[in-house]
Amino acid sequence: MTTPDLTDVHPAWLPPEAFRAIGSRRTLVRGDGLLAETVREEVARASALYGGGPADPAGPADLVLALTTATPLPPAAQALLDGPGADELAGLGDEGYVLARHDGVTVVLADAAAGLLHGLFHVVRLGERAFGAARPAQAHRPAMRRRMLDHWDNIDVHPVMGQVERGYSGGSIFWRDGALTGDLARVRAYGRLLAATGVNAISVNNVNVHATEAHLLTDRLGDVAAIADELRPYGIRVHLSVNFASPIALGGLSTADPLDADVRAWWAATTERVYATIPDFGGYVVKADSEGQPGPFAYERTHADGANMLADALAPHGGVVHWRAFVYNHRQDWRDRSTDRARAAFDHFAPLDGQFRDNAILQVKHGPLDFQTREPVSPVIAAMPSTRLAVELQVTQEYTGQQRHVCYLAPMWSEVLGFRPWGPDGRDVAALATGGTADGSVADSGTADGALAGSGAADGGAGGPGGGLVAVSNVGDDRFWTGHPLAQANLYAFGRLAWAPRLDPGAVLDEWIGLTFAASRDRAALGRTLHEMMDGSWHTYERYTAPLGVGFMVRPGHHYGPDVDGYEYTPWGTYHFADRDGVGVDRTRATGTGYTGQYPEPWSEVYESPESCPDELLLFFHHVPYGHVLQSGSTVVQHIYDTHFAGAEQAAETRLRWQKAEGLVDPALWARVKERLDEQVRSAEEWRDQVNAYFLRKSGVPDAHGRRIH
Amino acid sequence: MTTPDLTDVHPAWLPPEAFRAIGSRRTLVRGDGLLAETVREEVARASALYGGGPADPAGPADLVLALTTATPLPPAAQALLDGPGADELAGLGDEGYVLARHDGVTVVLADAAAGLLHGLFHVVRLGERAFGAARPAQAHRPAMRRRMLDHWDNIDVHPVMGQVERGYSGGSIFWRDGALTGDLARVRAYGRLLAATGVNAISVNNVNVHATEAHLLTDRLGDVAAIADELRPYGIRVHLSVNFASPIALGGLSTADPLDADVRAWWAATTERVYATIPDFGGYVVKADSEGQPGPFAYERTHADGANMLADALAPHGGVVHWRAFVYNHRQDWRDRSTDRARAAFDHFAPLDGQFRDNAILQVKHGPLDFQTREPVSPVIAAMPSTRLAVELQVTQEYTGQQRHVCYLAPMWSEVLGFRPWGPDGRDVAALATGGTADGSVADSGTADGALAGSGAADGGAGGPGGGLVAVSNVGDDRFWTGHPLAQANLYAFGRLAWAPRLDPGAVLDEWIGLTFAASRDRAALGRTLHEMMDGSWHTYERYTAPLGVGFMVRPGHHYGPDVDGYEYTPWGTYHFADRDGVGVDRTRATGTGYTGQYPEPWSEVYESPESCPDELLLFFHHVPYGHVLQSGSTVVQHIYDTHFAGAEQAAETRLRWQKAEGLVDPALWARVKERLDEQVRSAEEWRDQVNAYFLRKSGVPDAHGRRIH
Repeated sequence: MTTPDLTDVHPAWLPPEAFRAIGSRRTLVRGDGLLAETVREEVARASALYGGGPADPAGPADLVLALTTATPLPPAAQALLDGPGADELAGLGDEGYVLARHDGVTVVLADAAAGLLHGLFHVVRLGERAFGAARPAQAHRPAMRRRMLDHWDNIDVHPVMGQVERGYSGGSIFWRDGALTGDLARVRAYGRLLAATGVNAISVNNVNVHATEAHLLTDRLGDVAAIADELRPYGIRVHLSVNFASPIALGGLSTADPLDADVRAWWAATTERVYATIPDFGGYVVKADSEGQPGPFAYERTHADGANMLADALAPHGGVVHWRAFVYNHRQDWRDRSTDRARAAFDHFAPLDGQFRDNAILQVKHGPLDFQTREPVSPVIAAMPSTRLAVELQVTQEYTGQQRHVCYLAPMWSEVLGFRPWGPDGRDVAALATGGTADGSVADSGTADGALAGSGAADGGAGGPGGGLVAVSNVGDDRFWTGHPLAQANLYAFGRLAWAPRLDPGAVLDEWIGLTFAASRDRAALGRTLHEMMDGSWHTYERYTAPLGVGFMVRPGHHYGPDVDGYEYTPWGTYHFADRDGVGVDRTRATGTGYTGQYPEPWSEVYESPESCPDELLLFFHHVPYGHVLQSGSTVVQHIYDTHFAGAEQAAETRLRWQKAEGLVDPALWARVKERLDEQVRSAEEWRDQVNAYFLRKSGVPDAHGRRIH
Repeated sequence: MTTPDLTDVHPAWLPPEAFRAIGSRRTLVRGDGLLAETVREEVARASALYGGGPADPAGPADLVLALTTATPLPPAAQALLDGPGADELAGLGDEGYVLARHDGVTVVLADAAAGLLHGLFHVVRLGERAFGAARPAQAHRPAMRRRMLDHWDNIDVHPVMGQVERGYSGGSIFWRDGALTGDLARVRAYGRLLAATGVNAISVNNVNVHATEAHLLTDRLGDVAAIADELRPYGIRVHLSVNFASPIALGGLSTADPLDADVRAWWAATTERVYATIPDFGGYVVKADSEGQPGPFAYERTHADGANMLADALAPHGGVVHWRAFVYNHRQDWRDRSTDRARAAFDHFAPLDGQFRDNAILQVKHGPLDFQTREPVSPVIAAMPSTRLAVELQVTQEYTGQQRHVCYLAPMWSEVLGFRPWGPDGRDVAALATGGTADGSVADSGTADGALAGSGAADGGAGGPGGGLVAVSNVGDDRFWTGHPLAQANLYAFGRLAWAPRLDPGAVLDEWIGLTFAASRDRAALGRTLHEMMDGSWHTYERYTAPLGVGFMVRPGHHYGPDVDGYEYTPWGTYHFADRDGVGVDRTRATGTGYTGQYPEPWSEVYESPESCPDELLLFFHHVPYGHVLQSGSTVVQHIYDTHFAGAEQAAETRLRWQKAEGLVDPALWARVKERLDEQVRSAEEWRDQVNAYFLRKSGVPDAHGRRIH
């Protein structure tokens, strides 16, 4: 294994300075295997920078990272095994580890090498605190067994979507000029960054599988294998998006019917070849019967039939299929108010509960529509107790500012993961995705760990049979990985929440700031500034864009910037129905589309009534007059004016804060953020003016505070 | 000269059957020169099909086409010269001819070979009627000296605009795969079709001159020469769109300042080389300082400076520069109601009147905005008496259904050409473009000629120093040339109106139908059907799209289909300002942008008052309440409802008519039209529903007739 050259890539949250505490100490790594080598390499690199080094196996050490199977164990590790903390060592699994400090030695013990690597990054997060006071042994295990990023990368540049669909960070890091990238070092560096967050799987191509990309499954499988080789040392498995019609397009068959014997044999043989090339291949991702992609409907088969066919092909090799539940009619008639896109996933999939194989994972977007700034949690997540569900988030900021706006999304994800479909006593979304027991065990493990609450706090204890957490990645070949340097925080936070969904998003943010800007000459001041800029940025963005959960109002196609009626008369099923009297979508059982009925109690009732429905989702569930009084006490139209003035003002304040941070960070990064903030301020004002003008023109209600509306 | 192979291209309005009358007779062609050869070739081809043939020079002939300089003249021609009709022969010019029939011989006499060709096509239009009763000698001359089509063709396929910008008929007929087309036969066939309409100039590339196309001026000039070679036999001269910044991009200079000596020298030398290669080259077309194209503003020079520089380079060779007046701020702030894009061309150019060279032609779009379905005539046309003005029309149906909708545009053009800026006693637009005398002589010449009024009626008598008529072409490599086969009629009518602006558009339509479907088994029935489908189709299209002259309301970018607010909050300067109380743009002097003041009396006053402003332009000039009563007696909002219901209904009726025409035309053509009509009906209903729903939601006024509005 060659040591990756990190000089050419932005270090993101793993700058050399973040390894100072480790690098300046004597460290002993014990254990075999590829990932143990990775741990040795990380330690060696840090030591080379900061003067520490591998400890003499027989001598004293400051830090011990060891597999429980290593013999002989270093004394500090053996003491842990023999001591009162040994209970924590039970059931660590493939990725878990125990962290302890006693007698001046910090110890990480794991049953498998991946656990050592995760433990190492835990020590990195703690920094000097890892070497301070004694700490009792504490086990850390990932809440989600699979923590995955989907890349919507095309090999060929798509004429409309570009190379990365919904990508705002340049070209693909995997593909260039129609071939595998020549910059595999960058792929490896990416894997290293992901490993430090806890991510352990990626899918390397767009779920819209075009002609060229379809061949990754067969004659271009070598490209996938090359990527897998780069990521393997970081414990990251590679998955592939496949086209449901592959048996026709690639196999020369006349059908892709999932119950056809030849089709099944083709998938079995093809999958066999995949595993012969990539033994630890993760599995397939499929978008079927969605937005023009082929699927089982063409053969009058169910989506369970389709998913199970692929699951059966993968099962002998331990692979899984991620089958996306994003199925709806994108040729809807806007005149037809009874059809409700929000209902579609539930209507399609809930009846299939129990029909999916164990290695078929239904991948459900967190909301019923499509990654809007504010949506309720998808009712599908509570509707399929006998199906492995993965919750899909969108790290790439398609509808949340496209990495030109600061929008730290972890608070939204945290709300989603903490949503309890059956009320306060029931399981939450995190538990459902975890597949943990019904007692909400996800929330129980771990305790806070000082200022950096993320460090060791609230890790999951389950790693159950659930589908895990998946997100659409936001990286590209941009020098800062994510276009907007601050959008790195979303990628980081996703991995952390997938490992430990109970983490406080603000604490994760501080953790990211602390690592990323470890070398700043004034970490405290910079940390305060960035926290103020980012922690509430999702709410700021929400204020100046579509109001009260109604969604969309973006420019069709690229989805950037305001266009209040942009989707109003389209076939996409995304409407607000504003007229001169009121606005919003009636999704009630009583008078609307009946969507509220897809929720169990209490939410079904809570959402049904405009009085109990949370303000922030009011227009998602109800069509109300402009004068309707919110729980906040404001009218709907005044709320629209107020939030839009406030949101644009907050964007301007964010820019002011950053101006004061000049000199505290790398000038190139500072300038990039500054340039993006200029655009955010401009865009926020545009949103404010268009939305306010639209509703003033429509309602005729003047602003109560007499501000200028155009 | 090789005879063009016409078997692979659609014959459009020159099917073999259209030549039956000539082809079955004895014809004598006398005269020398390339175009006389073309006339001989046409006669020979027709004769080969229908059994006639060249007459024995010494024997009797049915048709004589002769140059006045030919010696000896055939007796019938000599008789014309010696007879009472000889007066008509004065001042025929380069393209005029005299047509007569006496003593059983039809005679065409011309001073130049191009006149013979035009005369030949006149005889084609007349068909058997050319060989009936005697007809006195009558002179025919083009009203416009230059009758030109601009091709917005790119060599490279543009990522957004495709190969032909605003092209709805497939790829370019000139360029393919980045090079000159291999199908020059099609170019030649196109030239032949154009010659039959009267067009005598084309520009071969997009006015937005991208990097590749810029090189046509220099190292790729050979491609232009090859096209010129194909078109020369039909009397069509080739022009080139050039990039104002060419001295920098191609010449390696550091500036494109039109007053810089090196720049002027570069243009002079470059133009010299162009003429060395293409001696009859027509000149340059320039879009400068417009929608991102470079121009003289960068050097603080005027557009007269820019145009004159090119004019000076062209003058020694007899070339002209077409300088487009389409200059406006496309980065306008929608919040700013005082800026009015409609004012822009006048504000930019009127002060420059008198400053342009004689061979600089200012090319002015017929309306102040951009080829909308209904606009007033541009006030620039009346504002520059000391400038050669060309009026620019748009044959390609960018805003009029994109060749998916039937929309016969000649009635619109006819209204434009007949508009009299100074009232009923003043000159009209045709006269201004013609550059004719102030007495409106354009309208005086010629008399009607039976049912096909176009045949010989109302030709111009001027051919004055005006700028002529220019239009954006609608052809592509589509098998029917124009996507929608019926859109051929627009191309045909453009050429005919450029030659003779007073022609009745309905008669031109019948002429086109008669030629195009000469072989139909029931020409009378088909003719009635097509006339009913097409003659009022512009008004039908207007009814179901943007109402009362307000314009736009199309999907941004591609401009197809409805999006009422699509341009409302954009920088493009194209707004309707609809709110819950009313709609329209106040362009009055009293309370609006002052645009009405750009017109002379009486129109300045007529447009200023909502009472006298023509209904069809009301919302272009005025912002009025929904309840405002039109001259028609209807309210604005009820008018919107009524016209949209009616327009969609008429589209459906058009389809019904075509269904009955099955079997009367080529099945492939029938099917293509049918498919387009299906789309038109669908789209018209979409327009109806969106526009009506939008205004019902906004105004709250129900339809007086209780029809369903969504």
